[in-house]
Formats: sequence, structure tokens, C-alpha cells
Amino acid sequence: MKSFDEITQLITSEIEQINWSREPRGLYEPIGYVLSLGGKRIRPALTLMACNLYSENVQQAMNSALGLEVFHNFTLLHDDIMDRADVRRGQPTVHKKWNDNTAILSGDVMQITSYQLMTQTPGKDLKRSLDLFSQTAAEICEGQQYDVDFEKRDTVSADEYLEMIRLKTAVLLGCALKIGSWIGGAGEEDAQNLYDFGINIGLAFQLKDDLLDVYGDEATFGKKIGGDILCNKKTYLLIHAIELARGNDALELNNWLNTSDEKSSCEKIKAITSIYNRLGVKKICEDKMQFFYRKAIANLDKVSVLENKKQELRNLAGKLMSRQE
Amino acid sequence: MKSFDEITQLITSEIEQINWSREPRGLYEPIGYVLSLGGKRIRPALTLMACNLYSENVQQAMNSALGLEVFHNFTLLHDDIMDRADVRRGQPTVHKKWNDNTAILSGDVMQITSYQLMTQTPGKDLKRSLDLFSQTAAEICEGQQYDVDFEKRDTVSADEYLEMIRLKTAVLLGCALKIGSWIGGAGEEDAQNLYDFGINIGLAFQLKDDLLDVYGDEATFGKKIGGDILCNKKTYLLIHAIELARGNDALELNNWLNTSDEKSSCEKIKAITSIYNRLGVKKICEDKMQFFYRKAIANLDKVSVLENKKQELRNLAGKLMSRQE
Repeated sequence: MKSFDEITQLITSEIEQINWSREPRGLYEPIGYVLSLGGKRIRPALTLMACNLYSENVQQAMNSALGLEVFHNFTLLHDDIMDRADVRRGQPTVHKKWNDNTAILSGDVMQITSYQLMTQTPGKDLKRSLDLFSQTAAEICEGQQYDVDFEKRDTVSADEYLEMIRLKTAVLLGCALKIGSWIGGAGEEDAQNLYDFGINIGLAFQLKDDLLDVYGDEATFGKKIGGDILCNKKTYLLIHAIELARGNDALELNNWLNTSDEKSSCEKIKAITSIYNRLGVKKICEDKMQFFYRKAIANLDKVSVLENKKQELRNLAGKLMSRQE
Repeated sequence: MKSFDEITQLITSEIEQINWSREPRGLYEPIGYVLSLGGKRIRPALTLMACNLYSENVQQAMNSALGLEVFHNFTLLHDDIMDRADVRRGQPTVHKKWNDNTAILSGDVMQITSYQLMTQTPGKDLKRSLDLFSQTAAEICEGQQYDVDFEKRDTVSADEYLEMIRLKTAVLLGCALKIGSWIGGAGEEDAQNLYDFGINIGLAFQLKDDLLDVYGDEATFGKKIGGDILCNKKTYLLIHAIELARGNDALELNNWLNTSDEKSSCEKIKAITSIYNRLGVKKICEDKMQFFYRKAIANLDKVSVLENKKQELRNLAGKLMSRQE
């Protein structure tokens, strides 16, 4: 059994070995740039770890794992254009460093690259892996569309929000685990339990992200605290605050949601955080996160391999819940 | 053997049957819109026609054929954003009718859809069809990148231009034919000859496009005449004109290339067309088109099926060369 750290080292070294200094440079250079910015490599790690539950040969799942990582980075690239985000992982985004057209076209070729890697999935698993990958990829686009749609709506229900983050974030974790387990040799029931483990970890992961945006420590979080608050992002916290606020809280919240004056940024973050605290939405969000985390662990419990083999996935799940970045 | 018209009718009816009124509507509606605008359906037709050379069952290649058509329309969608083109097939483009973000995201999911269709290629041909499709898709992005790069350069050689249109236009025709022939049961030599036939027809096809932009009849062409001239597009005609112009012609050409005043549009088109006529670049372009057309026919001659089976492809090639739209 390989540890999470060993596995991410394998992945990082494979990613570094891909040569992006091909012609036309304007097309391929941004891909190398994006992939060099790092990230936690969680998706490909999940693929190799799921494979490793059934087989010592994790290398056989490497190309599929890399395909998922390239796809994930492609979605970030195109999402950043749509969100007009200038910074990603502390560095300028591709559309900022180059331009929109470059970000569109390099993104397109990244998506193709992800399919090229995925097409190297071992033959017995090729068709079903590609089908699941494509379904997942389409769901991620659907999630992004709902995210965009929700920005324009006055209210979004908690259930709608959870469905959106299931599509935008969770399905790719489930997909990564399922494909890895197939390649390793899992039966369909295990593969499905691992998929569900991924979905629930993904939902909990995103709720943790919502919490970190407000309650994180700027130094370790790596992003500015309060980013979601400033752009009125309908996170799990805000959705519940809108639902629960009464009287003065409701008035004040509404006023701040209609304020986009940059000079009062700090004040807005402070004020909305205070409202969150008064309404107890932090606990609501934490409870929901714990709820999905426990569901995930229950899914993992059902996976029929020796307990010690599952320890690394269990540790990773715990780490994702307690992370400060 | 099915005729080209029978085959395009089959394709059109399959495309019409796909239901795009799914949720989220903002994501899927634009795809239905783009595919309903029509087009000649040449790429999927080539796939079915190539399959039909070896098998009466063209339906077995239908999903792969549709995948190529969806992919082609995806490239148009994203190219139109990059080129800021407002009109396609007489109708507003997606980024114009909706907005840029919609065009980016709907395009992304179209690319995924094209892979979903391509993944339904019969098992024996799945891996090699996907590999060729991905390689081709990446080449098309490379072609688009060179096209963008060339706009910013002062000079482009005729060979560079031909390589660009090979990537941007021709490889997809070759890919369509090769995959169709594989599915039908062709051997590797025939498949390669059909691929080469597609490449050469594609090159001739694009040169015909360059000619039609200047010498076409506006009523039948469906686009404004002189569009390439107005945006200084380095077509085969302009590249040769820049190379051949001397003295007054060179001065005049250079002046017009530095004029982007909309009021003198008509004058610019007339003047540059006159220069083309004086320099004889129309004939140079027609000769090169004929050169590739003859090469294509020689490739088709080598395909080892009965002559009468190849007649439809021969007719189609002829029709593409003499087309007025």
C-alpha cells in the first residue's frame, strides 16, 4: 500500500515530465503554466488510491489519473474567464497573463488532452471509464451553469445549492475513485460505494471551503478571507442567513448585499460575518459538513477490502475536513 | 450504395432527433440552436460514405459521424467568440445571441458531447478512432492558434498557410473518412488513402473558400463578398499578392492594408480585387486548388473497392470544387 504522500509524489513527477514546449507555443505554453501552479492533486490521488485497494500496480491507472487532473485544471481555466478571476493559486490566471482567446483555446486543447490520457485506460475498462468520465464532465459543466444562474437569482434553496456543488465539485471525486477501483479490479458494488464516498467527501469538502472563506486564517488559507461575501456568492452560509434573518438582521443583511462599494469591503466582511455569528449559520454549515463526512465514512466502511488498506483514504478524508487551506 | 443526398438526409434526421431541451436550459439550448442552423454536414457524410464503401450498414458509423459534426460545430462556436464574429449561417452567433460565457460553457459541453458520441464507435474500432479523433481535435486547435498568430505577423509564407489550413480544415475531413472506413471494415492501406483523399480535398476546399470570398456571387455565397479582404486575412490570394506586388501595386496594396476605415470598405474590396487581378493571383490559387483536387482523386483511385462504389465520393469532390457557396 502506498501512502497519500507517496502517491502525490508519483503524480507530481509524472506531471512534470510532460513536455509542453511544443509548437504552437501560444497554445501549449499556458497549459504547462497552469499545471505547474500546483494544487493538492486530490483527484488523481483518489484514482491511484482506489486502484491501490485492489492492486499493487498503481501505474496502470496513472494515465486515467492524469486525465482527471488535466480536466480539473481545464475547468479552472475556463471558470476563471467566466468569473473574471485574476488570481489562481497566488499567480495570475491564464486570461490575465495572456488573454481571453488564449485561455479559451488552450482550455479546449486541455480538454482534448484529458481525453487523450483517459483513452489510455486499460482496454477492459476503457468504454465504461470514458462513459463515466464524459457523464461527469458534462455534469461539471451543468454545475458551473447552475452556479452562474444562481448568481442572478434572488433566492436559492439549500437543496438547490447542494445539488449544484454535487455537480460542480463532488462528481469528479466520485468518478476518480470509481475509475481507479475498476482499473484495480474492484467489483461493481465496491466501485459504487467508493463513488458514493467521493460524492459525500466532495460535498463536505465544498462546505469546508464555504467555511474557510469566512472563518479561515488568511495566512494559511492562501486566498483573501471574505471573497465569497464580497461578491454576494450564495454559499451554504449566505443561503441560510437569508432564510433565517429577521427584523434588523434581515434589513442589515439586505443593505450589505446591495453594497458593492470597494471602500467598505472590510466593513462588509465584518458585518456579514457578525450576522452569520448571530444567526448560528456557521454551526449549521459545520453540522451539514459532518453529516456528509459521516455518510462518506459509512460508504467507505462498506467497501469490502481489509480495514488497513482503507486507512489512507480514511486519513485523507479526515485531513480534508480539518484542513485550514 | 447510398447517395450523398440520402446520407445527408439520414444525418439531418438524426441530428433533429437529439433533444436539447434539458436542464440547465442556459447550457443546452445554445447547442440545439447551433446544430439547427444547418450547414452542409460534409464531415458526417464522409464518415458514412467511407463506411458504405465496405458495408451496407452505415448506421453502425452514425454515432461517430454525429460526434464529428458536433465537434465541428463546437469549433465554429468557440472560433466565433475569438474572431468576434456576429453572424454565422445568416443568424446571430451564440456569444451574440446569449453572451461570451454561455458560448464558452456550451461549447465545452458540446466538445464533451462529441466525445460521448465518438465513444459509441463499435468496440473493435473504439481505441484507434478515439486516438485519431483526439489527435485531429488537437490539430484543429493548433490550426486555429496558427491562424490567430498569423494575423499578428507581417508576412506568412504560402507553405505556412497551407500547413495552417491543413490543420484547421483538412485533418477533420481525413479523420471522418478514416474512421468511417475502419467501421465499415477497410484495411489499413485503404483507410490511409481515404485519409489522404480527405486531406487533399480539404486543402482544395479551403482554397475554394478563399476564392469565393473574393470572386463569389453574393446572392449564392451566403456571406458578404470581401470579408477576408476587409480584415486583411492572409489568405492564399493575399499572401501571393504581397509576394508578387512591385512598384505602384506594392504601394497601393500596402496603403489599403493599413486602411480600416469602414466608409471606404467597398473601395478597399474593389481596389484589392483589382490588384489581385493584375497580379494573376486568382489563377495561382485556382491552379493550387486543382493540384490538390487531382492529388485527392489519385488517392481515391488507389482505394481498392469497385469503381462504381467510389462514384459518390468522386461526385462530392467535384461538387465541392465547383460550388458557388
